[in-house]
Amino acid sequence: MKRLGILTGGGDAPGLNAVIRSAVKTASNVYQCEVAGIEDGFDGLVQAERWRLLTPDNVRGILPRGGTILGAANRGNPFARKVERDGQTVVEDISHLVVEGFRRLELDGLIVVGGDGTLRIAHELHQKFNLPVVGVPKTIDNDLGGTDVTFGFDTALQTATDAFDKLHTTAESHHRVMVLELMGRDAGFITLHSGVAGGADIILIPEIPFEIERVCEKIVARDRVGRKFSLVAISEGAQPRGGEQVFSRAGDEIYTARLGGIGHKIGAMIERVTGKETRVTVLGHVQRGGKPSPFDRWLATRYGAGAVRLAAAGQWDHMVGLHGQRIEPVALAEALAVPKRVDPNGEPVRTAKGLGIVFGD
Amino acid sequence: MKRLGILTGGGDAPGLNAVIRSAVKTASNVYQCEVAGIEDGFDGLVQAERWRLLTPDNVRGILPRGGTILGAANRGNPFARKVERDGQTVVEDISHLVVEGFRRLELDGLIVVGGDGTLRIAHELHQKFNLPVVGVPKTIDNDLGGTDVTFGFDTALQTATDAFDKLHTTAESHHRVMVLELMGRDAGFITLHSGVAGGADIILIPEIPFEIERVCEKIVARDRVGRKFSLVAISEGAQPRGGEQVFSRAGDEIYTARLGGIGHKIGAMIERVTGKETRVTVLGHVQRGGKPSPFDRWLATRYGAGAVRLAAAGQWDHMVGLHGQRIEPVALAEALAVPKRVDPNGEPVRTAKGLGIVFGD
Amino acid sequence: MKRLGILTGGGDAPGLNAVIRSAVKTASNVYQCEVAGIEDGFDGLVQAERWRLLTPDNVRGILPRGGTILGAANRGNPFARKVERDGQTVVEDISHLVVEGFRRLELDGLIVVGGDGTLRIAHELHQKFNLPVVGVPKTIDNDLGGTDVTFGFDTALQTATDAFDKLHTTAESHHRVMVLELMGRDAGFITLHSGVAGGADIILIPEIPFEIERVCEKIVARDRVGRKFSLVAISEGAQPRGGEQVFSRAGDEIYTARLGGIGHKIGAMIERVTGKETRVTVLGHVQRGGKPSPFDRWLATRYGAGAVRLAAAGQWDHMVGLHGQRIEPVALAEALAVPKRVDPNGEPVRTAKGLGIVFGD
Amino acid sequence: MKRLGILTGGGDAPGLNAVIRSAVKTASNVYQCEVAGIEDGFDGLVQAERWRLLTPDNVRGILPRGGTILGAANRGNPFARKVERDGQTVVEDISHLVVEGFRRLELDGLIVVGGDGTLRIAHELHQKFNLPVVGVPKTIDNDLGGTDVTFGFDTALQTATDAFDKLHTTAESHHRVMVLELMGRDAGFITLHSGVAGGADIILIPEIPFEIERVCEKIVARDRVGRKFSLVAISEGAQPRGGEQVFSRAGDEIYTARLGGIGHKIGAMIERVTGKETRVTVLGHVQRGGKPSPFDRWLATRYGAGAVRLAAAGQWDHMVGLHGQRIEPVALAEALAVPKRVDPNGEPVRTAKGLGIVFGD
Repeated sequence: MKRLGILTGGGDAPGLNAVIRSAVKTASNVYQCEVAGIEDGFDGLVQAERWRLLTPDNVRGILPRGGTILGAANRGNPFARKVERDGQTVVEDISHLVVEGFRRLELDGLIVVGGDGTLRIAHELHQKFNLPVVGVPKTIDNDLGGTDVTFGFDTALQTATDAFDKLHTTAESHHRVMVLELMGRDAGFITLHSGVAGGADIILIPEIPFEIERVCEKIVARDRVGRKFSLVAISEGAQPRGGEQVFSRAGDEIYTARLGGIGHKIGAMIERVTGKETRVTVLGHVQRGGKPSPFDRWLATRYGAGAVRLAAAGQWDHMVGLHGQRIEPVALAEALAVPKRVDPNGEPVRTAKGLGIVFGD
Repeated sequence: MKRLGILTGGGDAPGLNAVIRSAVKTASNVYQCEVAGIEDGFDGLVQAERWRLLTPDNVRGILPRGGTILGAANRGNPFARKVERDGQTVVEDISHLVVEGFRRLELDGLIVVGGDGTLRIAHELHQKFNLPVVGVPKTIDNDLGGTDVTFGFDTALQTATDAFDKLHTTAESHHRVMVLELMGRDAGFITLHSGVAGGADIILIPEIPFEIERVCEKIVARDRVGRKFSLVAISEGAQPRGGEQVFSRAGDEIYTARLGGIGHKIGAMIERVTGKETRVTVLGHVQRGGKPSPFDRWLATRYGAGAVRLAAAGQWDHMVGLHGQRIEPVALAEALAVPKRVDPNGEPVRTAKGLGIVFGD
Repeated sequence: MKRLGILTGGGDAPGLNAVIRSAVKTASNVYQCEVAGIEDGFDGLVQAERWRLLTPDNVRGILPRGGTILGAANRGNPFARKVERDGQTVVEDISHLVVEGFRRLELDGLIVVGGDGTLRIAHELHQKFNLPVVGVPKTIDNDLGGTDVTFGFDTALQTATDAFDKLHTTAESHHRVMVLELMGRDAGFITLHSGVAGGADIILIPEIPFEIERVCEKIVARDRVGRKFSLVAISEGAQPRGGEQVFSRAGDEIYTARLGGIGHKIGAMIERVTGKETRVTVLGHVQRGGKPSPFDRWLATRYGAGAVRLAAAGQWDHMVGLHGQRIEPVALAEALAVPKRVDPNGEPVRTAKGLGIVFGD
Repeated sequence: MKRLGILTGGGDAPGLNAVIRSAVKTASNVYQCEVAGIEDGFDGLVQAERWRLLTPDNVRGILPRGGTILGAANRGNPFARKVERDGQTVVEDISHLVVEGFRRLELDGLIVVGGDGTLRIAHELHQKFNLPVVGVPKTIDNDLGGTDVTFGFDTALQTATDAFDKLHTTAESHHRVMVLELMGRDAGFITLHSGVAGGADIILIPEIPFEIERVCEKIVARDRVGRKFSLVAISEGAQPRGGEQVFSRAGDEIYTARLGGIGHKIGAMIERVTGKETRVTVLGHVQRGGKPSPFDRWLATRYGAGAVRLAAAGQWDHMVGLHGQRIEPVALAEALAVPKRVDPNGEPVRTAKGLGIVFGD
């Protein structure tokens, strides 16, 4: 093993740089192997000049930094790349260009750090071209199978929980309802974990369609016993049972708020139904940034080293996964088979309900 | 001086509890004076039972807590209280009830902790009824005259700057424009200070009407020299030169976003004009909450003690103010005469412009 | 199940209040069961009046607070209590008084939250008196068997890692060696995890006796290649190979520093051997305090609820443990059988060594 | 003005990089002036190759970073440099070499960022050689005259106050005395401000010699009324009235703790006198590191720009100072005339005493 490539793809997650640093140091110190850092995901392989040699020296100091020094602003799936042709958008398969890039760089293997989408591409490159890839799972949403958790999630939880802590006191002083909209299109882990950790009264997640009546009942019930404020945690992907038309019924004013997300909609609805002043915060990409937490740095560091070991062992088409306290190889096919979701009947949700938290179901 | 009252009014600001604690301890330890904590602003004086005795013992532990143990959810100005009468909303002057409450509680003076609105009421109560009031200035917006700064502002800056730090790395990795909407209806201090501290490229504040063209030019110019991302700091009260119709011109889609604030509007505009992916975060009330910073605890503690000293000296109708390193009395009339605003031509704005930051003017 | 008792024992750990709150809410909401909060560990059972009823109402707001509302300042093991008798210290077994207290309070079960020592007492009370106990593991050192991790550890890691981050820049600017002494008498987990997360160059832990020569060689080697500073992470329980006399050899000055711990000793030694300015920080109990991290709040909440479920199921003499993502019952005997230690040959240490970190072996 | 030099000297302070970045950007954008970054204080001028051109491009991203990219590990005062000569240490005046370096680099002015010592050298260089210098005050201790405050102090306060917050809960749970030793050889500002902000019960600073009896009385008095714990804030430079022999009287054990500082000594003394378990934390250089706070970034940014303006105006031998909200020029001679100390009779100390805090006098 003389030279490995590494690339990062998909949404940002704190810890990406820690993975890169660890992979480079491990490859160099343990295996006397070079690492080529490829820019902007698979795009960097398609264009000849979009990479640079990474050394223990030039990855110094990046451990605590958010973002990725390799960039992640790629132009989409190389198996189905949208390109403009004669004024029209057509979809092309340019995956062979990735393989050509891989050969041009004289790589012995490719470490792909990414979420569901990026890892799936890696898996397909292996299927189709036998490209020697190993994966490192990355998703702040924690929605990937094959691993207990991935890096970035813990840092996102800290940002979200910190927001709840701040909203708590001001909600209480002003007898208000505070809505906090958090990331999570399909999986509610950030919302569930930070909601419980941050003392939310109501938690609305994609996995459990909610009824607005249940939400408002809880707020009113709290009010009646002197708890004049409520905290509502909601995933961007949460949906009312019955879908969007629920908001439509509530009148044009709300429905036309096309730029506002579910947080603003639910906030307007609560204000209308309960008559309580309601304020909405949309944390947005703040959740993807910042210094990784110690846990995320630790996990990312072990992942980076683990991926190099997988490559050294020739265990291609696998990714590293955390099972309990152990880093173990997981076949990409297996990891990608079933996405991870919050179990509506699992212990964590039951525990939250036991605390009195309402999920709107 | 046997018994002082204290109340908190207006929007929340980290440090309110530190003021209360300090006033209670100082009154008790130094002046052997009781303190009556009045709930929910002036409302607590109107209703007989809405107060409680505060002692060094029962204010223990509140120093680092956000919010106010006295609540601040009042029902509006007692000089012009909106009430329902026969199905109609009428405005009544119930200020005499405040004075009656003051007498019923046998107070020798009243410490009023609040912003522009609340302090103005205090001043009018002194004007009209000779009510012995002293003020403590409070505003996270830093828009009050008569004092260099007030508590809460520094903590809000930390929350806002922390958000910029987080957005920075993810913006850079993904070549995106990140818009952060911050508090400040009339004054841009939070946006200016945190924007400079957080490395924003563009700062839009109420005091400097902006032109969307200037904003987009800066983003494009950065792009051209390889800075593929930009951070935009915008106050909720910032306005385009020419007003709202600017957005209207940009098409219905944006203008109808009635629930979304200026942040979402400017974000949509930037995306349309520059073609760059743009993401918007609205921090909202997160800025009003949380543990006060050491500076805010220190200032709030000195303010609380200073207010008790003013009362002991009978220096009514004054508030405490910070001038340089000193706490000094300021006549309420003077403090309220001219609200503080960012000087568009002052050294701070010039310094920011010298760094290359664009204000859109 | 009509009434459960709960007590906290041993060293402080962030998350104790979260366990208490969760147990009380779960017992009340799910099982209509009262909870008696017993003060200062088992001592509160020995003395009749040292407890109070905990309700969902009076545990409100404690979730994010460090410490324990029940106190933990007990006077030692009730099976071997040191008492003064006729001017002499004798050891008595007063464990029967614990059982009497249990009966006097009419408890149906006792939730014991504690580390190795406290849980062992719980186990012995069950062995000897058949006292119905369930355990919740707690140790910031992470040295307990039967569970992947316990609450408090993650928060301690954040405090320690934050200190490394701060030392890093100042060490680099001044070309200094910075030594950070961390908690861990017998187990080096805090030092290992935060050392890796914080970018330490040298990590010294109880499980791996170190040679001072190896430590100084690393510092000198870094110096030679232009890395003019080094960060040393050391557990309070780390020991040089050969024991204390190593320091003795280095001269009286160091050896007589009886109040200073291993951190100061190693710092003095490094300065003497390498001639580089060295500074020492001893974080001490700062590691035990503060707001629990989101992970610790989440885990503590699940533990509290899980302990109540164990009690409801009559699964006495067990504790809750985290295995992967699941909370599962573990027999106390099993959990206490083998303390957890850093494996000198395990993947985490190998990974750290692969990064170039020196352990002094 | 074609080229300015900039150097940083003395102890580290968060915000140094923000000064450098601001000076470079302002000089370039506003004055089309180059900036030469000189390494390791005045040493970089003595040695020809120890500098590099700083541009807006190569100072990007350093705003939030602690430390100084220019280094500060100099070898002492160029007016009295200790050098080895024939095995003996002699003191030489090499200040003319600084001037030669200044000329070799073809500088039009020199921005010196430093504390009392470094600025004094700058002033003497101007006195003796008419070297065109401007100063930027820097000291985390806040002990410099001529300015309300300097950058770095606010960040140090946050680190110290955060430690108090963490110690508070654990002290309370375990009924312990917690001693926190903080920086400040001659000035107690960090200890006073963070002690008040962090809720310390006892504050010991260099400006107010303390009596150990007063300290222990306070702890015992608190104990008696049920406050079973106490927090003691102590500056490294605090001294008992009567000096060191006070500790000697307490027995050899304590006095021989030569490596331990005043914190460990006072801790041992308190434990002996009051019989209460006492724990000591020595924060050390953690106080000098880390991300600068928003206030420090804002102030440092204005200082950097202000220093360039002073240079452009030829206002040599002056430094920038903060007076209220304004940045103003201050003659170095004036700023250095009287060091700033905590006024034992000033309002802040009186306010703290009014809260019940004991200073040991």
